[in-house]
Amino acid sequence: MTANIDRRIEELKELGRICRGDIIKMTTIANSGHPGGSMSSIDMYLSIYKQANIDPSRPFDPNRDRVIVSHGHTSPGVYAALGRLGFFNIDEVISGFRHAGSIFEGHITRGIPGVEWTTGNLGQGLSVGVGMALASKLTGRNFRVFVAMSDAEQAKGQVSEARRTAVKYKLNNLVVVIDYNDAQISGRARDIMYVDIKADYLADGWDVIEVDGHDYYQITEAISRSFGGKKPVAVVCNTVMGKGISFMEGDVSYHGKPLSLETAAKALEELGLENDLDKYVEMRKTLPSYHEPVKPIDEPIKPITGTPITYPVDKKTDNRSAFGKALADIGRANRNGTPVVVFDCDLKPSTKVNEFEKVWPENFIQIGVQEHNAAVVAGAASVCGTLSFFADFGVFGIDETYNQQRLNDINKANVKVAVTHVGIDVGEDGKTHHCLDYIGALRNFFGFGLIVPADPNQTDRAVRYMSQMQGNCAIAMGRSTMYPITDENGNPFFGGNYEYEYGKIDIIRKGKGITLLSTGQVTHQAVLAADQLKEDGLEVTVLNLSAPLASDLDSVSDYLTGTVITLEDHNIDTGLGSIVEGYFVRKGFLPEKFVKIGVDRYMYSGDNEKLYDLVGLSRDSIVEKVREISSQ
Amino acid sequence: MTANIDRRIEELKELGRICRGDIIKMTTIANSGHPGGSMSSIDMYLSIYKQANIDPSRPFDPNRDRVIVSHGHTSPGVYAALGRLGFFNIDEVISGFRHAGSIFEGHITRGIPGVEWTTGNLGQGLSVGVGMALASKLTGRNFRVFVAMSDAEQAKGQVSEARRTAVKYKLNNLVVVIDYNDAQISGRARDIMYVDIKADYLADGWDVIEVDGHDYYQITEAISRSFGGKKPVAVVCNTVMGKGISFMEGDVSYHGKPLSLETAAKALEELGLENDLDKYVEMRKTLPSYHEPVKPIDEPIKPITGTPITYPVDKKTDNRSAFGKALADIGRANRNGTPVVVFDCDLKPSTKVNEFEKVWPENFIQIGVQEHNAAVVAGAASVCGTLSFFADFGVFGIDETYNQQRLNDINKANVKVAVTHVGIDVGEDGKTHHCLDYIGALRNFFGFGLIVPADPNQTDRAVRYMSQMQGNCAIAMGRSTMYPITDENGNPFFGGNYEYEYGKIDIIRKGKGITLLSTGQVTHQAVLAADQLKEDGLEVTVLNLSAPLASDLDSVSDYLTGTVITLEDHNIDTGLGSIVEGYFVRKGFLPEKFVKIGVDRYMYSGDNEKLYDLVGLSRDSIVEKVREISSQ
Repeated sequence: MTANIDRRIEELKELGRICRGDIIKMTTIANSGHPGGSMSSIDMYLSIYKQANIDPSRPFDPNRDRVIVSHGHTSPGVYAALGRLGFFNIDEVISGFRHAGSIFEGHITRGIPGVEWTTGNLGQGLSVGVGMALASKLTGRNFRVFVAMSDAEQAKGQVSEARRTAVKYKLNNLVVVIDYNDAQISGRARDIMYVDIKADYLADGWDVIEVDGHDYYQITEAISRSFGGKKPVAVVCNTVMGKGISFMEGDVSYHGKPLSLETAAKALEELGLENDLDKYVEMRKTLPSYHEPVKPIDEPIKPITGTPITYPVDKKTDNRSAFGKALADIGRANRNGTPVVVFDCDLKPSTKVNEFEKVWPENFIQIGVQEHNAAVVAGAASVCGTLSFFADFGVFGIDETYNQQRLNDINKANVKVAVTHVGIDVGEDGKTHHCLDYIGALRNFFGFGLIVPADPNQTDRAVRYMSQMQGNCAIAMGRSTMYPITDENGNPFFGGNYEYEYGKIDIIRKGKGITLLSTGQVTHQAVLAADQLKEDGLEVTVLNLSAPLASDLDSVSDYLTGTVITLEDHNIDTGLGSIVEGYFVRKGFLPEKFVKIGVDRYMYSGDNEKLYDLVGLSRDSIVEKVREISSQ
Repeated sequence: MTANIDRRIEELKELGRICRGDIIKMTTIANSGHPGGSMSSIDMYLSIYKQANIDPSRPFDPNRDRVIVSHGHTSPGVYAALGRLGFFNIDEVISGFRHAGSIFEGHITRGIPGVEWTTGNLGQGLSVGVGMALASKLTGRNFRVFVAMSDAEQAKGQVSEARRTAVKYKLNNLVVVIDYNDAQISGRARDIMYVDIKADYLADGWDVIEVDGHDYYQITEAISRSFGGKKPVAVVCNTVMGKGISFMEGDVSYHGKPLSLETAAKALEELGLENDLDKYVEMRKTLPSYHEPVKPIDEPIKPITGTPITYPVDKKTDNRSAFGKALADIGRANRNGTPVVVFDCDLKPSTKVNEFEKVWPENFIQIGVQEHNAAVVAGAASVCGTLSFFADFGVFGIDETYNQQRLNDINKANVKVAVTHVGIDVGEDGKTHHCLDYIGALRNFFGFGLIVPADPNQTDRAVRYMSQMQGNCAIAMGRSTMYPITDENGNPFFGGNYEYEYGKIDIIRKGKGITLLSTGQVTHQAVLAADQLKEDGLEVTVLNLSAPLASDLDSVSDYLTGTVITLEDHNIDTGLGSIVEGYFVRKGFLPEKFVKIGVDRYMYSGDNEKLYDLVGLSRDSIVEKVREISSQ
């Protein structure tokens, strides 16, 4: 037994020596990258990957353990460890590192065998680990989760949010391994911003084990002790930046600076490794100019979408209640199948996810006022076999967590973001709570879907639709109630057999010469205005764009030649109106007249109907505007 | 002496009784708002405002103490305390609360006498307090800063970031007073997300005093003990939600629910106060439909902008180095005047603010990897007599801190945000580090300025310009070096006497029929392309839009009728191209041909010049595109 352990430790030591050479080589060949931290973390990485239950020949097995590396700039260390443990060909890394023709980017990328999350923006990894460890329990797969982090990123507040969440949910299938090299870009970590790492973890209810981060026996033993206890455990590894090369050790300047070819030769000599740099220089010359982006391989989930609810046209309902009911129904339908998980930030009575909590309390995860963490936890859970919903107000679920959603997007996750209280429809809570950029913000990303439903019936269908749609998608809803939108016969427009289709534009009223293009619950006002105007003999077209980022405007181009008015409870410059402007220019035609109506300033705290009047989004103000235009 | 204290305590008690009535009245009259937390916090508020050195008759005196209320939804409590202490007419609050015709919004607003920061998004207030306490020391004004917070928001990670910053900078002119009512929207705080508040503050190096939050003597005494010691102090006030009205006490449902007129009558009776609700109902009817937004009154700063540096055209320089040098020069010029303060998040060698550090080390504030906190600290410092620069990479200073910048914007602060490493120009660090939304993100706000300079010389002038510009403004710079842009005679285009003017479009080359509209360092490529094309006999106009959010396109409309090509190292859908599209539609004309070139996906980690080639932003690819178009 002891002999086995000794052999294993010797094997790790030899791998450590070789990997250090790989780190030197790939950064030198790329003339770019982060050797210093890679060399302080490499012994951690080898200990973790060696211990984790991941089969290099089946790296996407849903039951595999997950390893998250939060300080993604130590990619040379991660790639070296994975390469030498058989996950991929190490020569491809050394020659291709940081080259556009190679998948081995400057920061690790989800989908590469062994890499579970694209990181690089610090302080995110523990939240990822929490999300995956939760999913491990909720799916019953019971895999373990290893999170490696740097010391500098312990200062990020999001880490404390993740710590508390791990304790609350008793995540003893999670271990955090911290590279405490006490060095960061600007100098010694303790001078830059002192974090008492041990005290912080203990204060939040964790156990802490301190080890020599270059002693494989200590690291391995501490990690294996960490699982299954009463508390989650942080293993703090005392390390040396640049460890292994005499002239790099403790020198902060090697954080983000590679060695020259000459200095690399010296380093390789010191490691007792062959200098084969020339080979990789040559290999690099043969790389293509770019590569196909890595596609993560996730087990697809097939949630049941339940049975649509049709809200009667004579009773006011809010979209968020329709969302809450649909979500609860989806929960009910999947109780024996796909784990549906809902993440809340202490707003359940307002976002209406309390409906889901009643149905499936164990899968209702209360993260409290910790939005950054919640967005990432939900994103990470979404790629581990759960249908993951993150519910919040717009200003928190989109604005406060903007970069977290961007990272979910970069990670090609599958999170469903349900934000309520968007727009000045929020009313009295005022400008800090008026989310006016739910289109403009997500438009900056390249992959996120967005649905802005018009009424409770469309909301119901859209929620079910997005549940089975692959990829990240947000749904944005207001606060106030409305009568469901009717067709010209007075029946629910989005009721009965109506099926939601992403990108499809709904032609709610057909008129002549004047077209209202609208999104979200403003459409309700637009329809009321059209019906009122009809009494005056003015027939106005009303088009509803529930997917502003993907609307098929070609399908309605016939309606876009006369007077076109866009209506949005959103920043007037960055939402629907701007998208429609882009369409006109792209197509090379302009309507006879184009008017944008939206919010052009931070708005007052006040009654939402009065605010709509003020901005021109209420039925009456739309009617007035159309009359004014048509009398010109 | 004791008699004096007793009298003071009795006076506070009586004010507490009256203010509780005011809280009930204003929320009932508005039929909206948060009475529960207001009533647990009111005794804290009265104790704080009574003790703070703020003269209601001179509420904007630069030397006043600052009081920050982080849980801004307890506005009824804040308004009641301030109203009863003579800061404004309490009747105006009670009748106008949450009405669009009144300045007394649902969340407290900076600029109202006694209100130093608009809050409402939780977890921001301690960072605000840290920024103001730092400014207090750096300006030599030595005022004190009081921060009131709720318990639920202690979970926000940003609070831990602020705590560490306060300890690092020995802010013993700062006290935090926490309303520990153990109640939040979804239930008991300890059940929602347990935070060991005391342990967390102690772990981060603070002192903690626990008191009965409804005992004026204890609160007052604890606060006055808190200043001037070795550590910052948190006063934890044990309180009861809804305190003072028997049927409200401890009932979480009163978090965000006002009393009906009938129930309010009972509450007023219990408080022994006259029921004058009718009076306020009548007053409310007379309010206008909206009010002029509150304009904060800050002492204007008049920094010296130093002497412009002209970079020679035969030497490559990066914009960020030009920024670093200009900032250092501004520091040097103001050493005996306006305190210039620079906030860094452990990126000084990359953002080049280390140049400033050499000049003015005491005013170089190192916040570490705590961006959310840093953005708010810088914003708060910017309204307390300092010229405040926050420097970071684009993905952190804009994306990660998107909502913090939005809140700086809502607060009409005066922070200068300098982001480097924007665009795919960042190259090898890859997609997590490519900020592609510096225009699209700030375009969602209503007040933030944005400068994207073309070359080192324009950067130099722009930095000096923004230093004396009033209001929040960002400057976005890439990573790579370039030769400064020349005029047609080979002299620096932005050198010599060139003065930066916000919104002005620079006509760098005048051509015929084909116009390149460009922003940032892509302009350099556009000019090189134009010069190359000239050799082919193609004269191309190059327009540089350094202020994409405010560009005076009318001034160059003559150039916009033929072929127009926009070029941006930015998301192709949400930046310059989109702004130009909006201009065409607004003006009602289209160019003969319009082409947008920009980034349409998350980009590779690779050599920045090769990435520019791939996307079409390099000199050669622009040349090729123009040739292709002109040969059609």
